[in-house]
Amino acid sequence: VVDHTAADEPATGPAGSPDGALLEQLTAVVGAGAVSAGDVTADEAHDEALTVAPVAPLAVVRPSRRDEVAAVVRLAARHRVPIVARGSGTGLSGGAVPVPGCLLVSFERMHRIVDIDVDNHVAVVEPGVTLHQLDEALAPLGLMYPVYPGEQSASIGGNVATNAGGMRAIRYGVTRNQVLGLELVLGTGEVVRTGGRFVKSSTGYDLTQLVIGSEGTLALVTEATLRLHPRPRLASTVLAPFPRLDDVTAAVPRILGSSLVPSVLEYLDAIAMGGVTAAAGLDLGIADELRAQAAAYLVVLLQADDERRLEEDTATLAALLEEIGALDVFVLPPKAADELIVARERAFFAAKAAHADDIVDVVVPRAAMARYLHEVADLASAHGALVTGCGHVGDGNVHLSVFQPDEERRKALLSAMFRAGMECGGAVSGEHGIGTEKKPYYAALEDPAKLALMRGIKDVFDPAGILGPGRIFDR
Amino acid sequence: VVDHTAADEPATGPAGSPDGALLEQLTAVVGAGAVSAGDVTADEAHDEALTVAPVAPLAVVRPSRRDEVAAVVRLAARHRVPIVARGSGTGLSGGAVPVPGCLLVSFERMHRIVDIDVDNHVAVVEPGVTLHQLDEALAPLGLMYPVYPGEQSASIGGNVATNAGGMRAIRYGVTRNQVLGLELVLGTGEVVRTGGRFVKSSTGYDLTQLVIGSEGTLALVTEATLRLHPRPRLASTVLAPFPRLDDVTAAVPRILGSSLVPSVLEYLDAIAMGGVTAAAGLDLGIADELRAQAAAYLVVLLQADDERRLEEDTATLAALLEEIGALDVFVLPPKAADELIVARERAFFAAKAAHADDIVDVVVPRAAMARYLHEVADLASAHGALVTGCGHVGDGNVHLSVFQPDEERRKALLSAMFRAGMECGGAVSGEHGIGTEKKPYYAALEDPAKLALMRGIKDVFDPAGILGPGRIFDR
Repeated sequence: VVDHTAADEPATGPAGSPDGALLEQLTAVVGAGAVSAGDVTADEAHDEALTVAPVAPLAVVRPSRRDEVAAVVRLAARHRVPIVARGSGTGLSGGAVPVPGCLLVSFERMHRIVDIDVDNHVAVVEPGVTLHQLDEALAPLGLMYPVYPGEQSASIGGNVATNAGGMRAIRYGVTRNQVLGLELVLGTGEVVRTGGRFVKSSTGYDLTQLVIGSEGTLALVTEATLRLHPRPRLASTVLAPFPRLDDVTAAVPRILGSSLVPSVLEYLDAIAMGGVTAAAGLDLGIADELRAQAAAYLVVLLQADDERRLEEDTATLAALLEEIGALDVFVLPPKAADELIVARERAFFAAKAAHADDIVDVVVPRAAMARYLHEVADLASAHGALVTGCGHVGDGNVHLSVFQPDEERRKALLSAMFRAGMECGGAVSGEHGIGTEKKPYYAALEDPAKLALMRGIKDVFDPAGILGPGRIFDR
Repeated sequence: VVDHTAADEPATGPAGSPDGALLEQLTAVVGAGAVSAGDVTADEAHDEALTVAPVAPLAVVRPSRRDEVAAVVRLAARHRVPIVARGSGTGLSGGAVPVPGCLLVSFERMHRIVDIDVDNHVAVVEPGVTLHQLDEALAPLGLMYPVYPGEQSASIGGNVATNAGGMRAIRYGVTRNQVLGLELVLGTGEVVRTGGRFVKSSTGYDLTQLVIGSEGTLALVTEATLRLHPRPRLASTVLAPFPRLDDVTAAVPRILGSSLVPSVLEYLDAIAMGGVTAAAGLDLGIADELRAQAAAYLVVLLQADDERRLEEDTATLAALLEEIGALDVFVLPPKAADELIVARERAFFAAKAAHADDIVDVVVPRAAMARYLHEVADLASAHGALVTGCGHVGDGNVHLSVFQPDEERRKALLSAMFRAGMECGGAVSGEHGIGTEKKPYYAALEDPAKLALMRGIKDVFDPAGILGPGRIFDR
């Protein structure tokens, strides 16, 4: 149910009311068609986090360029009205969910690819550009932007806010490793540009890195300079069922210690594999007998430009997997391989369709995955829940779907799961972010001295405290 | 000349003087042998920046563990005495040079490799560990820490402070890309731990990245968690002279757009090549006639585990270089190759021996290198100076030795060179840092809004303003 209490006025508001004055001023900045108050869409009231209740903002504002964003922020600062930024709304932690009375600044109109600079392997984009849109522009040039967080409709702005990761992080790193510079609107409305079309700098504090992953609490991103990579021509996908989950996690250091450089290194437990293949209507041709023995699957994507090398690497990988204890090794035909990767990418939606009650994406040291997953199994059992998983096993980043409809019991389980992750040397989130939904768990586990540093940094960027209200931590 | 005015007292100081009281308290923390006041070595009064005048601190303090560092910082905060951190003193921007009356906190006793975690590809080290020391420990394990900034006696702590780069950054990235976590002592003496043995996180602001490159102004690093990589078994080094510098810079996008993944991609202009080979007593067997035609050289290191692939890649590279216009292509015998890489690594010392008056390490977009180097040549000529260069051409990071003994004319030239770099879309320093020596140039060129953010962040980490006095910016 959308809470419309603060948003049922027309965009101009009752004459003379403070909200009405603000809405008039916003309209003067971005134009009448770009401010919605009474007619906020249901979509804009939430993101993809499974646990959020939709909330309508005071208004949705859709700026079309940097100067409009700056003017909107200045108005909000003057009126002390909080701002929530929204890209495509595909986040999983509530980062884009409005608070009552806020302005939801949607970047949907700022979707221009400003430049693709082939010689520097750089793209400059507005925050509303989607991964799909960027990929369509890069493919004909033989280039790629490698971040692949499981949803190609995600926007670059949202990716920057959450430091999005995804399947290709094992080879290319996460958003943090691709963003070379940002144009930012601070909480005061000031505009600063950080970084540039270069891959290294030792010139003052790295403000680019500070803003990446700050979930809209420090600044609004109005432009990003991204690092591109040559697009490998050929790919080979290997699927290996293992009798035990421990065999999968034990395989990872062996693969990463070899000469092989996987582009994707994923695991799925048997339930997750069943879920994603069923949701995708995908038959990989694995015999029932084998499937009955398989507790977990490893999916490895190798890429190369040279056919012979790819074949050699695939053979090396297959031999290594057999040596490590795979029940069988399937080199998937291209179509099935693509379908499996897409199905894995859609694992969140499979979990959602199966009515998972929450999902988490804890990161632990990769060699601690086995220990962590055992602890999770014990915790799930102790809390009367089903927890099923898949994830970026090469990065120690596990996505766990939690099935426990009782909110209190589920929260107790989640607390215990996050705590166990940190006790394994990990962190609450590898790529989804804290947002509003993981905040209570994070607040309970994080060092108060670090939270104090973060609050202090936020005050520097956003002295009025209007940006990203209640995301990551409370002010 | 070392300024001993503030340091000629014995370590205990005149009884009852404020300095004496501090020195007594410091001695109680770290032990008598670990505080030096009157007997500061000449080495500790400076770093390797060509322009610094040595300055003696009030005292050198040599803590042996984290809690001692924290206690030293608390004492300094209470007495409002500034702290300059020192690793191996190999910095090139004055970052480790004392200010009168400061404590120089030397990390020479904190040189323990705490752990090498093969399964996670992680090393945990104290800040005084040197690159050489770490490499000796990793080589037998088939692992490497890839940062190679031209001085293997450099310490990890200093590398973190400056975000050290070096020749292998083209493949592996710089210090920023290797540091997964830090243990920090803030300006209040509080201890916090950031990050961990994982390669990705979206769990609050990335304080690790914020501290990297902050040149000792935010916190003292007492432990670093580093990312390791498999150590390639085989290497091939290719040297190609070109008739014009522009040919070299034009070659770079071609090489990086191919399937080749160079581990090193360096250029040297003819003078720099002459300097480094002469300083190293190295004869590469290039005929005089060819040398006379060569304006610049490209050095490319390829690495692999497989002999056939390395040969193929070397042949591909050689063909590409010929196509691009190399005067010749030399595949160097292993010994000569190693010697050339080491000689290139020692380019700074060659420049120093040739009495260069200053060196800078501007970074520009790699495709802007040609334009930038032309502008530098014009500026050098206009300022009656000789400027010769080499550098990490694949990263757009150029090291320029400036020969102009007149300080005023040299400073005018440097200002113009930095400005030109920024106008090409670059930044003042790619890897040396700002320190004290590049600060006036940086202050004149940086956006005041960004400097204000940095000062605000510094106040959060170091409210008493004692850490890294006058480094990067004035408070």
